[in-house]
Amino acid sequence: MRVFHDIESLRQHLAVERRGRRVAFVPTMGALHRGHGACVAIARDVPDALVAASIFVNPAQFAPGEDFQKYPRTLDADMEHLRRWSCEVLFAPAPEVMYPERQRVWVEAGDLSEPLDGRFRPGHFRGVATVVAKLFHIVRPDVAVFGQKDAQQALIIRALVRQLALDIELRLARTVREADGLAVSSRNAYLAAPERLQAAALFAALDAARRALESGERNARRIEAAAIDVLRGAGIERIDYAELRSAHDLSALDAAKGRVILAIAAHVGTTRLIDNMVFDVRDGGVHTDVTLY
Amino acid sequence: MRVFHDIESLRQHLAVERRGRRVAFVPTMGALHRGHGACVAIARDVPDALVAASIFVNPAQFAPGEDFQKYPRTLDADMEHLRRWSCEVLFAPAPEVMYPERQRVWVEAGDLSEPLDGRFRPGHFRGVATVVAKLFHIVRPDVAVFGQKDAQQALIIRALVRQLALDIELRLARTVREADGLAVSSRNAYLAAPERLQAAALFAALDAARRALESGERNARRIEAAAIDVLRGAGIERIDYAELRSAHDLSALDAAKGRVILAIAAHVGTTRLIDNMVFDVRDGGVHTDVTLY
Repeated sequence: MRVFHDIESLRQHLAVERRGRRVAFVPTMGALHRGHGACVAIARDVPDALVAASIFVNPAQFAPGEDFQKYPRTLDADMEHLRRWSCEVLFAPAPEVMYPERQRVWVEAGDLSEPLDGRFRPGHFRGVATVVAKLFHIVRPDVAVFGQKDAQQALIIRALVRQLALDIELRLARTVREADGLAVSSRNAYLAAPERLQAAALFAALDAARRALESGERNARRIEAAAIDVLRGAGIERIDYAELRSAHDLSALDAAKGRVILAIAAHVGTTRLIDNMVFDVRDGGVHTDVTLY
Repeated sequence: MRVFHDIESLRQHLAVERRGRRVAFVPTMGALHRGHGACVAIARDVPDALVAASIFVNPAQFAPGEDFQKYPRTLDADMEHLRRWSCEVLFAPAPEVMYPERQRVWVEAGDLSEPLDGRFRPGHFRGVATVVAKLFHIVRPDVAVFGQKDAQQALIIRALVRQLALDIELRLARTVREADGLAVSSRNAYLAAPERLQAAALFAALDAARRALESGERNARRIEAAAIDVLRGAGIERIDYAELRSAHDLSALDAAKGRVILAIAAHVGTTRLIDNMVFDVRDGGVHTDVTLY
């Protein structure tokens, strides 16, 4: 695996290596786990793929007071993972490579970035959209892979690609889970042992919503209440949201119909976790845990 | 010259034709004149250039009440010009090709878009930055050429390219002027004969500022006043601005020092015209009418 820390030498390498191949790109913040492995596996499945990843803990997507400083940085272990996953190219820039001057040009995702995490993480999605646009301009991927756990991010990046006419095919990796259902996440490393047990309630809450839907419930507030009851029952008190919304554009819903997402953000101890499940609700029944796109 | 109205066939054509050549791109709103010709000439001077232009009257950069509907559309004449200027590829999309759905992802230029035209044309530079980003993604130019008459636009596009890490070399064409100094512009077609005479005052105002600078004046307000006096003397009453600012970042100035721009927007009859002149003010003297970058 070739590792690059600056833009110019990465560009030169890719200009040569990409000929006749498709660049399949997995942007990450490092602290890699099996969820990232699932993304790289999808990239590797692209015919003639030149698999490239990036590791960049993007300061612009952390709001003041968030965990930018303590976010896990495990570059050596990450490189081991990427080599094992047959990644060929890694771009691992320092902050001053990505932000050599005060950023004044931003990609804004408008109403897609307003609900859910947008309400609780001011500036987060502007930071995400801007850094992803930059990484796309640097790597020029043919295919890019993101994880469905960050569902709102995945919808914003789809809008970015479509609405700014980027010639990139997006693929999503399904959320990878631990045995008890907890979505694997770099932030799980923050959890003390009792919190780790409590954190399983996020998946249990999604599962309760699933059961409500499968038993015929269509009222969005009651489906959300089924999830919230599970979180509260596990002693999780700080719930940023547990909302059922359209899986197309995150618009608010009163009734579950068509493709919908139940998205949760809750604090377990001092760690903020997110998770979601997507459902396809039809007259004939409910398809559970489908892909966002 | 090959003409394309849709994105996919343009992309396919360029994918074949660009091999071993550099795509040199001139985005325009049509109603082409010698100013655009100067841009195409610069594109043509790129070694091994594949010269491409676009014609798109971008609705997103017109504020409500502006001249989007009446903006001159002269596609047949434009194509004649482009052929004569040895342009090889024209992209001329309809609005629904560039905006197939409600735009929710925008490129924002922050403080660069706040002063000057940004104060008088709400949303204008957001529309410009967004459509230029889209055109860059569609055409993937190696070189792009813009006109210095739209100086604030040129600075915003430079910031867009730098700060979003686009691999595009920007070149600027100097403002082309009529015999009396009036900057050539598609909007000059709106001017009735007496207005056309009056419009020469914009250049005369820039020239008065130049003389003030050359005579040693460094006070920004007095340099601006010299320009405003000329506009008022010609009977131009509606002056949106006549401001001396940093030519690096458009920040406000009290004294002329280093590279500065005098930018003017004024209404002649019902037509709004802009013009500017860039100066390099040093201890040893003033270099007049230099390039913005």
